[in-house]
Amino acid sequence: MNTKRTNTNWKNKIHEIIYEADTPMGKWFDIVLFVLIIISVILVMLESVKEIDAKYHDALYAFEWVVTIFFSIEYVLRIISIKKPFKYIFSFYGIIDFVSTIPLYISYFFAGSQIFLAVRALRLLRVFRILKLVKFIGEASELTRALKASRAKIAVFIYVVIILSIIMGTLMYYIESDDTGFTSIPRSIYWTIVTLTTVGYGDIAPQTHWGQFIATLIMILGYGIIAVPTGIVTTEFAKNNKQKGNAADNGTNFVHMNTQCCPSCSAEGHRDNAKHCYNCGGTL
Amino acid sequence: MNTKRTNTNWKNKIHEIIYEADTPMGKWFDIVLFVLIIISVILVMLESVKEIDAKYHDALYAFEWVVTIFFSIEYVLRIISIKKPFKYIFSFYGIIDFVSTIPLYISYFFAGSQIFLAVRALRLLRVFRILKLVKFIGEASELTRALKASRAKIAVFIYVVIILSIIMGTLMYYIESDDTGFTSIPRSIYWTIVTLTTVGYGDIAPQTHWGQFIATLIMILGYGIIAVPTGIVTTEFAKNNKQKGNAADNGTNFVHMNTQCCPSCSAEGHRDNAKHCYNCGGTL
Amino acid sequence: MNTKRTNTNWKNKIHEIIYEADTPMGKWFDIVLFVLIIISVILVMLESVKEIDAKYHDALYAFEWVVTIFFSIEYVLRIISIKKPFKYIFSFYGIIDFVSTIPLYISYFFAGSQIFLAVRALRLLRVFRILKLVKFIGEASELTRALKASRAKIAVFIYVVIILSIIMGTLMYYIESDDTGFTSIPRSIYWTIVTLTTVGYGDIAPQTHWGQFIATLIMILGYGIIAVPTGIVTTEFAKNNKQKGNAADNGTNFVHMNTQCCPSCSAEGHRDNAKHCYNCGGTL
Amino acid sequence: MNTKRTNTNWKNKIHEIIYEADTPMGKWFDIVLFVLIIISVILVMLESVKEIDAKYHDALYAFEWVVTIFFSIEYVLRIISIKKPFKYIFSFYGIIDFVSTIPLYISYFFAGSQIFLAVRALRLLRVFRILKLVKFIGEASELTRALKASRAKIAVFIYVVIILSIIMGTLMYYIESDDTGFTSIPRSIYWTIVTLTTVGYGDIAPQTHWGQFIATLIMILGYGIIAVPTGIVTTEFAKNNKQKGNAADNGTNFVHMNTQCCPSCSAEGHRDNAKHCYNCGGTL
Repeated sequence: MNTKRTNTNWKNKIHEIIYEADTPMGKWFDIVLFVLIIISVILVMLESVKEIDAKYHDALYAFEWVVTIFFSIEYVLRIISIKKPFKYIFSFYGIIDFVSTIPLYISYFFAGSQIFLAVRALRLLRVFRILKLVKFIGEASELTRALKASRAKIAVFIYVVIILSIIMGTLMYYIESDDTGFTSIPRSIYWTIVTLTTVGYGDIAPQTHWGQFIATLIMILGYGIIAVPTGIVTTEFAKNNKQKGNAADNGTNFVHMNTQCCPSCSAEGHRDNAKHCYNCGGTL
Repeated sequence: MNTKRTNTNWKNKIHEIIYEADTPMGKWFDIVLFVLIIISVILVMLESVKEIDAKYHDALYAFEWVVTIFFSIEYVLRIISIKKPFKYIFSFYGIIDFVSTIPLYISYFFAGSQIFLAVRALRLLRVFRILKLVKFIGEASELTRALKASRAKIAVFIYVVIILSIIMGTLMYYIESDDTGFTSIPRSIYWTIVTLTTVGYGDIAPQTHWGQFIATLIMILGYGIIAVPTGIVTTEFAKNNKQKGNAADNGTNFVHMNTQCCPSCSAEGHRDNAKHCYNCGGTL
Repeated sequence: MNTKRTNTNWKNKIHEIIYEADTPMGKWFDIVLFVLIIISVILVMLESVKEIDAKYHDALYAFEWVVTIFFSIEYVLRIISIKKPFKYIFSFYGIIDFVSTIPLYISYFFAGSQIFLAVRALRLLRVFRILKLVKFIGEASELTRALKASRAKIAVFIYVVIILSIIMGTLMYYIESDDTGFTSIPRSIYWTIVTLTTVGYGDIAPQTHWGQFIATLIMILGYGIIAVPTGIVTTEFAKNNKQKGNAADNGTNFVHMNTQCCPSCSAEGHRDNAKHCYNCGGTL
Repeated sequence: MNTKRTNTNWKNKIHEIIYEADTPMGKWFDIVLFVLIIISVILVMLESVKEIDAKYHDALYAFEWVVTIFFSIEYVLRIISIKKPFKYIFSFYGIIDFVSTIPLYISYFFAGSQIFLAVRALRLLRVFRILKLVKFIGEASELTRALKASRAKIAVFIYVVIILSIIMGTLMYYIESDDTGFTSIPRSIYWTIVTLTTVGYGDIAPQTHWGQFIATLIMILGYGIIAVPTGIVTTEFAKNNKQKGNAADNGTNFVHMNTQCCPSCSAEGHRDNAKHCYNCGGTL
């Protein structure tokens, strides 16, 4: 029993360092992790620049191994120190952690699997977890909330844009000849979206009078259509803003939360004075 | 009289399946139709990709006939099962149904009429009718309402944009020489709209100092002008939002409506407990 | 005195036809004028298309003379029938009328002055005067009001955009070399505005690493900056909307106005039951 | 003591002319400075146009020296006439003044340092200080306030855009081959931002089916994302607008401020009837 307690203490210690940011050690761990992620992503980028890779290939490769091993250890510790490891493993961040660590091993054992190395860019998503400690997380959650609330309207909007693009794209395919780039309907649809979103690469551009006329209609349409998502999101922000104003008047709605994370169920966002997890009731 | 009643019953049954989505059969019919429309549109696209058409031409052609025959039968049944067929035939969806079914027959009987095949893309519009059963139709109708309410303002806006484009385009035609792409006034107007809407293909671009200076003005203008439709639509959304808030407070304004469609007058949007059509008074 | 009255009556008659749209004749005059303006602008466009001009040059030229003579007569009648001709001549529409009528005469008498023909596109502005009779003029005036109210803010905005473009453009000129199109500072500024407004022609595009990095910054900046005019105009619309709501509640603020125009002082927007000009007190 | 007073008076006089705009002399000084800045920036631009530089190099160079010497004198006077010169020297405008004056001297003494001449464009920033006297400064400060208030939200937004660009860019690098321009990950990220912000140069454009498909996703994403900063800023404007409305109702919040600047502590924005600096209590 004594061993078990020590064992638990040791696990608790690691849990505190890795999962939380309220102790000095936890903060340092997060900062080191943050820096490592950023450096590692920059290295992945540099690797792809031919001149740099030609010169520093070995150094980059060595460092990549260092980072990978560090991340592997971190991943193992995360599994060990949590009470319900499977919940972590199959959580969003658990999968990101695994998928962004594994590629180098795969490319080592299986030749020709370099394409998996691209997945390492997903490491950037891990930064979001670390940023829990930064003040502006509140702002982010407000943005997310507004976007979520207008999800259905935005879905309808995107749906209409796609239908429109397909019909207009098909029309343009039959109007324009092949040699101006409208070689197939999917390509014409690609062009329509490029035009409707006002991106306008110019790699494909209508040359006939009718093609240019319809292109003009699509542009003005796209120019007007952009008002719709903006209107949706703005209204949502304004609504939220008002509610918050009311909540602030009533005074009791907002409580400061810390970055602790329940060792049993991984729920986050506990009150500063919380002793038990609001979700599973386990001791924090 | 007995035969007539049976006949009516049989017609009612078909009407229920094809026009409504409240019975299991009606739901299944809609789902099958939805899948067929999507597949058929994808096939129209694939047909246009040279490599795919070269390989699978016969299979694609055969499937296209299957879809066309299915749509033809559906069209005939729609006409038979409704009480006032002409009202359906000349309604928006009646015309879409007809026009998106007929092209293959035309191209079969008249050589050189392949261009009509483009019209098949209009089948996508039929999807909107089916989506009656989907929850977010409420969101779509809200969007439509906001856009309809701001119709007049948007018309004024587009009118001003067109006048501006014509004047600016004519000016650019006289400033820029032919070899930079400004070969005629309609083409210059096309360029002006490409610029004003911030699409910017770059297939035509000013080269002279004065041309670039005026292009700069048009860009800044276009950049500012985009604020207008956005402002219009956002205000409309906000207004609607407020009204709905008030309506929700009063409590009695919203009633759930089903997907039934009056067999006499085709009016849609009956209350769940409706026994008579709100429009013509016929039995539902 | 009798002659004078007849004379005045005759002038009044013309004034009513040309300046107002409340009598059947006045309406017809406006419609004919509207059609002529549109046709004449289309002809100016067609003239510039080489193939069409080569074929129909004589017909187009003849019609242009017909239109010009019609506009000349109208211009003279406008001056004769109004009590204070100078007020009209130097008004906005007076200048537009003159300037859009004269070019053909000039090009007839002075060889090499074809460039003045471009001015004919300004005829389109005359359409605005005719549209007085259309319902949506109310909407237009609301748009104008909102834009006028946010004029100062938009000026500040455009001012900041220009300063930013000059500084960024200068920077890009020193970073990028000549052969990628950044041949002078004005040209670099042109590129910066093309980028900042998200037009992006691609005729000039950065090639160096630093150039692309700064281009990236400019793009994100431009992407964010577009929020500013939108925010300004939307707020203005919303404000106006609210005021109108309040005004509608009080009930007495809006009176229908007709399209009459005071024969003495040219003031417009008289009440339907007005007998005297609200501006100069003259009889209507 | 007499000398000292005279000395102080003389300094005060200069301080009034250079730092303030309430006396006729102060106004003239500002206008001359404004014109000189604008001319000098135009000259810097013209210098970069090869044809103009070839013809008028000597004149441009001479004038540049005149401007530089004028700015040098002004800079020295600014330091002399203020009570706490170091505060000015290390203030924002102090640094701008120094940095935009010095380049010509450097390029004179050190060959090959022409790149520093670019810094002269920063002179434009000095215009902001002069514009204190213009009415619309109030509008500008309102814009600034709204942007400041939404700073945190915009930071989150830009952060998400950057993360997204890096992940999407890396993905595109592995999908698209080298010969379409996706030669390295940084370059692919550059392309992603060009697309996401709807700039769309077209110097790099996807050619493969998958590349174009993902490009389509990025465009629609970018098209929707633009709604976010717009929503943020609009809400902020609306909020501010409302507060100002309330303030105007209460009546006592706004007092006219002049352009004086405390000679001791450089604080600006004193009330018209102020006799002492609100910040340090020194006599104005």
